[in-house]
Amino acid sequence: MDEMVGKIVSNKQIIFKRYIDEVPKESDMELRLGKEIKVEAPKGSAAFFVKNLYLSCDPYMRNRMRDLHGSYIPPFVPDSVVEGFGVSKVIDSDNPRFKPGDIVSGFTGWEEYSLLHNTDQMRKVEPDDHIPLSYHVGLLGMPGFTAYAGFYEVCAPKKNEYVFVSAASGAVGQLVGQLAKLHGCYVVGSAGSNKKVDLLKNVLGFDEAFNYKEEPDLDAALKRYFPQGIDIYFENVGGGMLDAVLPNMRVHGRIAVCGMVSQHGMSDQQGIRNLFSLIPKRVKMQGFLQSDYLHLFPRFLEDVSSLYKQGKITYLEDMNEGLESAPAAFAGLFSGKNVGKQVICVSRH
Amino acid sequence: MDEMVGKIVSNKQIIFKRYIDEVPKESDMELRLGKEIKVEAPKGSAAFFVKNLYLSCDPYMRNRMRDLHGSYIPPFVPDSVVEGFGVSKVIDSDNPRFKPGDIVSGFTGWEEYSLLHNTDQMRKVEPDDHIPLSYHVGLLGMPGFTAYAGFYEVCAPKKNEYVFVSAASGAVGQLVGQLAKLHGCYVVGSAGSNKKVDLLKNVLGFDEAFNYKEEPDLDAALKRYFPQGIDIYFENVGGGMLDAVLPNMRVHGRIAVCGMVSQHGMSDQQGIRNLFSLIPKRVKMQGFLQSDYLHLFPRFLEDVSSLYKQGKITYLEDMNEGLESAPAAFAGLFSGKNVGKQVICVSRH
Repeated sequence: MDEMVGKIVSNKQIIFKRYIDEVPKESDMELRLGKEIKVEAPKGSAAFFVKNLYLSCDPYMRNRMRDLHGSYIPPFVPDSVVEGFGVSKVIDSDNPRFKPGDIVSGFTGWEEYSLLHNTDQMRKVEPDDHIPLSYHVGLLGMPGFTAYAGFYEVCAPKKNEYVFVSAASGAVGQLVGQLAKLHGCYVVGSAGSNKKVDLLKNVLGFDEAFNYKEEPDLDAALKRYFPQGIDIYFENVGGGMLDAVLPNMRVHGRIAVCGMVSQHGMSDQQGIRNLFSLIPKRVKMQGFLQSDYLHLFPRFLEDVSSLYKQGKITYLEDMNEGLESAPAAFAGLFSGKNVGKQVICVSRH
Repeated sequence: MDEMVGKIVSNKQIIFKRYIDEVPKESDMELRLGKEIKVEAPKGSAAFFVKNLYLSCDPYMRNRMRDLHGSYIPPFVPDSVVEGFGVSKVIDSDNPRFKPGDIVSGFTGWEEYSLLHNTDQMRKVEPDDHIPLSYHVGLLGMPGFTAYAGFYEVCAPKKNEYVFVSAASGAVGQLVGQLAKLHGCYVVGSAGSNKKVDLLKNVLGFDEAFNYKEEPDLDAALKRYFPQGIDIYFENVGGGMLDAVLPNMRVHGRIAVCGMVSQHGMSDQQGIRNLFSLIPKRVKMQGFLQSDYLHLFPRFLEDVSSLYKQGKITYLEDMNEGLESAPAAFAGLFSGKNVGKQVICVSRH
């Protein structure tokens, strides 16, 4: 038994302050010090008590900051600790599936220690010296699985097809592009800085990449990179990029939509004017959530771990140190500050 | 051999004047008198010479009135005769597939007589005393097949699902709704007049129908008719109706898109703001053209003819008399003047 069990510890927390409609800011969350918690998984609770190691900053969390009920995930509770994906170490357990010392991945609190009751979707991580633990909220977590399920199941790719990925250096996009390359596709990515464009071309192996902020005419940019049109668009941003892509789709093209909601507000969203293109090109536009494909998760984990260990896949992570860095890191997602998957390191062990 | 063959006849024609961007008006076409044509399918031409009986007014034709090349169908040629679907009688033939007296359905000219060279997609119609010939450009023609392919192949309906059809009394919508009812679905239609609403409910057998022009809040109307949400939306209009439908879709809903392009201009199209709904509801939105499903046409013809002859399907036609009525009838499609499928009767035999 861990020597901490039964003791009271001070627990730093990140608190969600109040519902917002606008783009998240650092000040929408705050650090709370001095909260105490007993290191214990109470008998009969089936809960377990964890130390949080890595926390995941994901764009979808923006939706939980809205006062919007009835969606696929409930909103955060104001004045309560932020919830998100994390990698944690079990300290005490009243649950037979987990024992102290186990590393787990799933929903946890943005705090140093959490008592977790909702353990059904917790996944035990098998530590592997060749795979960073933090990858279990990125490459091998929800974002990676979003890329995997979206690309193979929603996009139904064929060899030699033309694939466009927006937000291509992000947590999801970077894996989509690499999977598409391994599948024999031609892949172009867009991103919001020249540094990201360089990474896409020279580290992540995209055929081409461009900085959308330097393109006054997105339609012209897409025609330059895809003179023959786009078979698959992995949509991560919505708005003007989606509108520019639509008329550049090829016949029987597919658009996988998972990220639009993350990056654009509902009230301020730019109207899409080119949907008519769906008809002459017979395009399928499909919204999806990775949670509908969880039966494929074991295969994903095996496939992508293996590709990574063979050196066929790279993963860019943007790691911020310390729980107190979380609000700024989260807000940075929405201005494109992060380079790769944004993670917070609370503790390395 | 028809006694007309070899003679010169005067051929009334409807001429497409010039490219437009706006909603079509009667004055975009004009009647031309005095053009002469020789009644003959020249030897070696593989063509045939027809007398046109019924001509079809279809919303997609608007796109051919734009100076827009590279789409799935070429634009009309200014100062030339309008082309569209029709039912015609063969007078002379140099094509072994057709003989004088045959009734054919396919692309023809908006004129009294046509010499047709492009005969590959012409279909021979077997006259049936119980089915009006004009139905071969409506119920049993392209619009009917659009409904059939779109509903069964794109919407993949299940019994007891909730189906919404816009432009529901139109050439396509009225069949979609009736097929959905026969499939065991709950079906609501929208239309633009109380007369059409009455027909939907009392003649076409829709469960409910509403006049969208009398609904100040389309979202509220949809919530009233679909408190549980919409599984299938057969999209015929785009714009504000599509935007209102999106947040009212159910999980794993399907939107079949074929008509938006017909009714809305490209340049003046209202932006769609609610596409984010595709994600939490995992909605599939699919553009389609009936021409991708032609392998199903024989089955369609058999199924729908049989349902019609059994009295299980009704078809509303709006028949205008005389070629000269065609420009006004066509323009009327875009203000909802037609009640049911708009056809021009050039000659009954």
